[in-house]
Amino acid sequence: MIGVWLVGAYGNVATTAVVGARAVARGLADTTGMVTARRPCTRLDLPAVGDLAFAGHDVRDTSLLETAHELSAGGVPSADVVDAVADDLERIDDGVRVGTAVNCGRAVADLADETLSAPEIGDVVAGIRDDYRSFVDGRDLDRLVVVNVASTEPGVERPERYDTLDAFERAVETNDRDLPASSLYAYAALREGHPYVNFTPSTGAALGGLCELAERKDLPNVGRDAKTGETLLKSALAPMFARRNLRVRSWEGHNILGNDDGLVLEEEENKAGKLASKGGVLEGILPDIEHNRVRIDYAPPLGDWKTAWDDVRFDGFLDTRMKLQFTWEGSDSALAAPLVLDLVRLVSHADEYGEGGFQPQLASFFKAPLGVDEHDFSRQFDLLERYVDHHAGEVAGDG
Amino acid sequence: MIGVWLVGAYGNVATTAVVGARAVARGLADTTGMVTARRPCTRLDLPAVGDLAFAGHDVRDTSLLETAHELSAGGVPSADVVDAVADDLERIDDGVRVGTAVNCGRAVADLADETLSAPEIGDVVAGIRDDYRSFVDGRDLDRLVVVNVASTEPGVERPERYDTLDAFERAVETNDRDLPASSLYAYAALREGHPYVNFTPSTGAALGGLCELAERKDLPNVGRDAKTGETLLKSALAPMFARRNLRVRSWEGHNILGNDDGLVLEEEENKAGKLASKGGVLEGILPDIEHNRVRIDYAPPLGDWKTAWDDVRFDGFLDTRMKLQFTWEGSDSALAAPLVLDLVRLVSHADEYGEGGFQPQLASFFKAPLGVDEHDFSRQFDLLERYVDHHAGEVAGDG
Amino acid sequence: MIGVWLVGAYGNVATTAVVGARAVARGLADTTGMVTARRPCTRLDLPAVGDLAFAGHDVRDTSLLETAHELSAGGVPSADVVDAVADDLERIDDGVRVGTAVNCGRAVADLADETLSAPEIGDVVAGIRDDYRSFVDGRDLDRLVVVNVASTEPGVERPERYDTLDAFERAVETNDRDLPASSLYAYAALREGHPYVNFTPSTGAALGGLCELAERKDLPNVGRDAKTGETLLKSALAPMFARRNLRVRSWEGHNILGNDDGLVLEEEENKAGKLASKGGVLEGILPDIEHNRVRIDYAPPLGDWKTAWDDVRFDGFLDTRMKLQFTWEGSDSALAAPLVLDLVRLVSHADEYGEGGFQPQLASFFKAPLGVDEHDFSRQFDLLERYVDHHAGEVAGDG
Amino acid sequence: MIGVWLVGAYGNVATTAVVGARAVARGLADTTGMVTARRPCTRLDLPAVGDLAFAGHDVRDTSLLETAHELSAGGVPSADVVDAVADDLERIDDGVRVGTAVNCGRAVADLADETLSAPEIGDVVAGIRDDYRSFVDGRDLDRLVVVNVASTEPGVERPERYDTLDAFERAVETNDRDLPASSLYAYAALREGHPYVNFTPSTGAALGGLCELAERKDLPNVGRDAKTGETLLKSALAPMFARRNLRVRSWEGHNILGNDDGLVLEEEENKAGKLASKGGVLEGILPDIEHNRVRIDYAPPLGDWKTAWDDVRFDGFLDTRMKLQFTWEGSDSALAAPLVLDLVRLVSHADEYGEGGFQPQLASFFKAPLGVDEHDFSRQFDLLERYVDHHAGEVAGDG
Repeated sequence: MIGVWLVGAYGNVATTAVVGARAVARGLADTTGMVTARRPCTRLDLPAVGDLAFAGHDVRDTSLLETAHELSAGGVPSADVVDAVADDLERIDDGVRVGTAVNCGRAVADLADETLSAPEIGDVVAGIRDDYRSFVDGRDLDRLVVVNVASTEPGVERPERYDTLDAFERAVETNDRDLPASSLYAYAALREGHPYVNFTPSTGAALGGLCELAERKDLPNVGRDAKTGETLLKSALAPMFARRNLRVRSWEGHNILGNDDGLVLEEEENKAGKLASKGGVLEGILPDIEHNRVRIDYAPPLGDWKTAWDDVRFDGFLDTRMKLQFTWEGSDSALAAPLVLDLVRLVSHADEYGEGGFQPQLASFFKAPLGVDEHDFSRQFDLLERYVDHHAGEVAGDG
Repeated sequence: MIGVWLVGAYGNVATTAVVGARAVARGLADTTGMVTARRPCTRLDLPAVGDLAFAGHDVRDTSLLETAHELSAGGVPSADVVDAVADDLERIDDGVRVGTAVNCGRAVADLADETLSAPEIGDVVAGIRDDYRSFVDGRDLDRLVVVNVASTEPGVERPERYDTLDAFERAVETNDRDLPASSLYAYAALREGHPYVNFTPSTGAALGGLCELAERKDLPNVGRDAKTGETLLKSALAPMFARRNLRVRSWEGHNILGNDDGLVLEEEENKAGKLASKGGVLEGILPDIEHNRVRIDYAPPLGDWKTAWDDVRFDGFLDTRMKLQFTWEGSDSALAAPLVLDLVRLVSHADEYGEGGFQPQLASFFKAPLGVDEHDFSRQFDLLERYVDHHAGEVAGDG
Repeated sequence: MIGVWLVGAYGNVATTAVVGARAVARGLADTTGMVTARRPCTRLDLPAVGDLAFAGHDVRDTSLLETAHELSAGGVPSADVVDAVADDLERIDDGVRVGTAVNCGRAVADLADETLSAPEIGDVVAGIRDDYRSFVDGRDLDRLVVVNVASTEPGVERPERYDTLDAFERAVETNDRDLPASSLYAYAALREGHPYVNFTPSTGAALGGLCELAERKDLPNVGRDAKTGETLLKSALAPMFARRNLRVRSWEGHNILGNDDGLVLEEEENKAGKLASKGGVLEGILPDIEHNRVRIDYAPPLGDWKTAWDDVRFDGFLDTRMKLQFTWEGSDSALAAPLVLDLVRLVSHADEYGEGGFQPQLASFFKAPLGVDEHDFSRQFDLLERYVDHHAGEVAGDG
Repeated sequence: MIGVWLVGAYGNVATTAVVGARAVARGLADTTGMVTARRPCTRLDLPAVGDLAFAGHDVRDTSLLETAHELSAGGVPSADVVDAVADDLERIDDGVRVGTAVNCGRAVADLADETLSAPEIGDVVAGIRDDYRSFVDGRDLDRLVVVNVASTEPGVERPERYDTLDAFERAVETNDRDLPASSLYAYAALREGHPYVNFTPSTGAALGGLCELAERKDLPNVGRDAKTGETLLKSALAPMFARRNLRVRSWEGHNILGNDDGLVLEEEENKAGKLASKGGVLEGILPDIEHNRVRIDYAPPLGDWKTAWDDVRFDGFLDTRMKLQFTWEGSDSALAAPLVLDLVRLVSHADEYGEGGFQPQLASFFKAPLGVDEHDFSRQFDLLERYVDHHAGEVAGDG
């Protein structure tokens, strides 16, 4: 049994991932949208979706079941599926603990009903570690993967001050009130010997000190901000322009969405981090681009249905001005949730096979992968294929 | 000096290619849009754009200069550039010969002012060979590449009857009136020892008998129908859906354009071939797609500005219905012309290095590449990179 | 009690109209989408939605409840609403009779399970009249409105041969096998003294002979082909271009849909009539337009969700080329159904107040209104406002 | 001869208006895009375009000819037209005076090369009046219309403090440094007896005190912020939703443009005024809309080509969620310029016929018309038709 600890357990992404995992396990849903359910990943001996045990942290006074019902009103998942896994959700709800919202910004604070607070940061860390430990011991888990799917935090100022493990730990000890929640969850996980996956643009384990810790403890450390929609398209399309030597002059992206993520991103401080990781993809692939802006706007009537409109102007032969415009519309949660399960399965595999530190083979999942400077989606996917080729020899047969 | 023989020399694509080549040679335009002007191809010792000598066939009573002026009124190329290369164009016009329009359909026949006609097909072939030979001899060329950029012909019925070189040559000898112009041009080229590049969906050298001839004569033989716009996007985007295990249910494409190509494609017989090669790309990458239709409609006010609108419906996790829609707008000729120059340079290189038969490294240029069953644009481009890696060792240094 | 006879009773539009009417009557749905539920029409004494009694004809062996369940799977109406009105639907199902599919084309014939057939056209008419009469008598109705919501028929050739009532009736008597079903239903209705509303592009009561009959019997006679989506937009947008003196050069419309209507329209013969009424709107408002084409394509995965993409090119000051593109996506049935109820209410009102013949006040509902040559949506709506002003004086008070 | 005083004479809109007027006068361009060039306005005896004499204010050290060349590089107007009217432009350049940029914000200050400055606001006003007077006297004009086409200013705080003419004049006398340039130009115009047209969202003559002055002097006073693109579409489309009782839930608009207007609007203070007038249109027509946001972003590669993308979500019958999305792309200046000429001609007409105060017949030209609370474009246009009906009787004949 593999444990999955969801930071932000009552959020849309976590809830959809849990509902989906239980629906797949019960044969009520197929695995469409899960990268690990098709070649090449089916050649690996990954943990079965049915063997994942869920728990997590949240700061709101609600439940997975309640969030599932709300999501269902918006169309996904269907009411039938929610009903069929309702008992599972209630059982998992029992394992959700009160989390911390330290340095998550005003918008998250407004959403929080109760938080894990303590006079000292060190006590907060200790509390988180206790929560992880109780889950692992109580369920006798083989392994735990901590996944951050909480709302985006504001970025950390001068992150270089936490560039070494020493500096980070000194900050904890001296009760440095600038450390963000995501990094505390990450630190607690790594200290306990569990890999930490940052599905969001928050800081998490990207601080130098935590990269050092993961390296030392031989634990996988991946990127941040999962690539689910508009940026995924960018990373598939931008290389096409580059290869054809078409000069992209501007790429304007406008996203509208109406869920809590959108509400939190209305706050400029939370939005800044998100836009940084979204913007970086294009600069990596199209270094000569003149103008590149991403907007994310909150439009409540859209609910979980995120819509992106992108306008791309490029020059071709003989200074010809041409353009591409696209509209992408998807359920934010339904795009993200299967990738949560994919990352848990693949990080668990890496952990089992002793692949510590950065994980370049997971680059295709992230807007800001760690330890690999490649944003071209197909090149990133090549890294996954090579990883599978390498490891598939170790197992008998080939799914 | 490398000769470039343009079948359809007075068309928009040919004219833009020639204007562009001369403008680049004279330092009046940069090489944006030319794949061979950037890495990896800059590592090859390709013929310089300024070392290309142009001539060709056409069936209309006009000139490169006249077409260039018409194109210029629509915006591309600019009047300044056309003026600057006007003398070059007039010199090239002197080398354009009357072509054949046999089996090109009613729409092309309507456009034709005069055609190379003869009682016997064998005489038509002989006439074409004479035209090639005069150009090579008259200009003392090192090499000739024949490129078909004429309007799309109707498809050949039962092409398997020309599956062997014997069958093809017997058809020529017995004056088989079903052979299409594109295949006659191809046959004449190969017989003369020149590679033939089919930039269009017409039959050309794709007949089994002509593949056999190219193979025997050790001449490069590439695919058909250059991938310039909507299909290029499909081949970049469809693999993204496949890799993410998102189930594409329908992909509806609607193209509108207003140039002569659009006029010819109003004829159902000419359109059929075009749609076949466009449609095949998706089926190759997304074998489970339920519905896949491409429309091409003639809308005169758009002129050379082709606009594609695509609607893609796909299912994600938990049966979530999502969609992507895009609008692509570009000058048909400005997208195609630099690829004509690229293909001439790369085919000339292959010919020089004795790479006969199919050319998988050029797959990324075609909707229907020959000899390689890969439609994923980035995978196709990998083949080009591998070719360059292989050949770049043979040259000193690296551009 | 006002009777509503639905020709095509088991179709999506009819079913959605009935489900909606019963849901409104039971207070389960609001009246969003019904023109008559807001000003100015609320000033008229229209029959209440709850006072409408439904019956009809169909040629398929299914039921309103079955169609409602199928529609519900596509999202609209919701399963809850269908369940709540299931008893009502079953009661209405008892009143649906076998209809005729004469001259409805091959696609409709393929869909038909059984049809009202008779050796003589006169007998078919007699059978339809019997069906109407049984319903009126059996339910003791104050009035009956017949509404054609069946699939689009192929157009009638040389419709001028039926330009007088005499000619039409002679055709019935001499068993003319060219008369289409829609005109037989219309003739039967008018002969029985009931107004006939043609919601589709089929011929219906637009023949000269039937216009004459409606006039003589002082029965309202409206247009054909309800304006629900793309054409509605055209009739709102095209006048804007005209008033601003912007010269529209081309307007290309591409519609994709996946319901039975789409399937029937795959047949060229059925599609022709549809495109004629759609195209006419623009020519009326923008007489100088150069190019104007409408495509309707069947794409099964879209189901009832019709998506239109329109590309409009126009010239402004100093020959500036500009453009508008729009994508409209709606449930075909949910757009149409409330207009069915509106037309029943408004035609019933006109009938009650002795307003026979053409009904210009209803022009805004139709792509091809009868008796009024106005396609500008806001000008058409002015006619409705004027009608209400005229009639609202006749009632006490003002809703 | 009618004088046209352009505040912002070297801007894109002014330059395009002047180039266009001269091109029309010389028979080099047609009147496409001019509302007054078609019915109903052709029935009025409006001043001929060739009878307009231009001059104006600007704060940059450039010229109409220079701006015209820059615009021409972007495509509109064509180089041929600019060359043909170059002499006219140079003659007009001689009449352009240094303007004031008081309270126009930092972005405009950055663009300014020199400004009309004086220690006292009263002196600035006096300087502007002198400029107007010299032009009228020097050219012996029958009438002068002052048109503000300068960059958008930040809004005035607490505008109600200038609600009476007394209050406004006291502010001028006491050297109130909060008065914006646009209102000083307006005050100077009205005091001199000239109507003032505010083509921009700036404050201008919308202050209560200036409305009072226009009323007293019997001078026409129109709205502000000409309706040229996205908002024009909104005012044509939103009434369609209302009339069909479709409930618009959100309308998100995203505009990108790359000219100086876009640069100035990057400043939040300048943008605020713009967004207020753009947003108001929808609230007027769709009072129940839940969410309504307009973005304007600067994207230099687009130049004068403004592109708007709008996403409209609406509910129909039975809670069906539907949507409309549109992309509008036009040259900002080519859309605006003919309306400048229209407004000059129509305001001149009103002035000649003694129609002082608010001008409801011009509502269709403005995002924020003065004195009329109607945003529906077709209703606004009805007011113009009624005005023409009223006045056309006064002239002999009918164009």
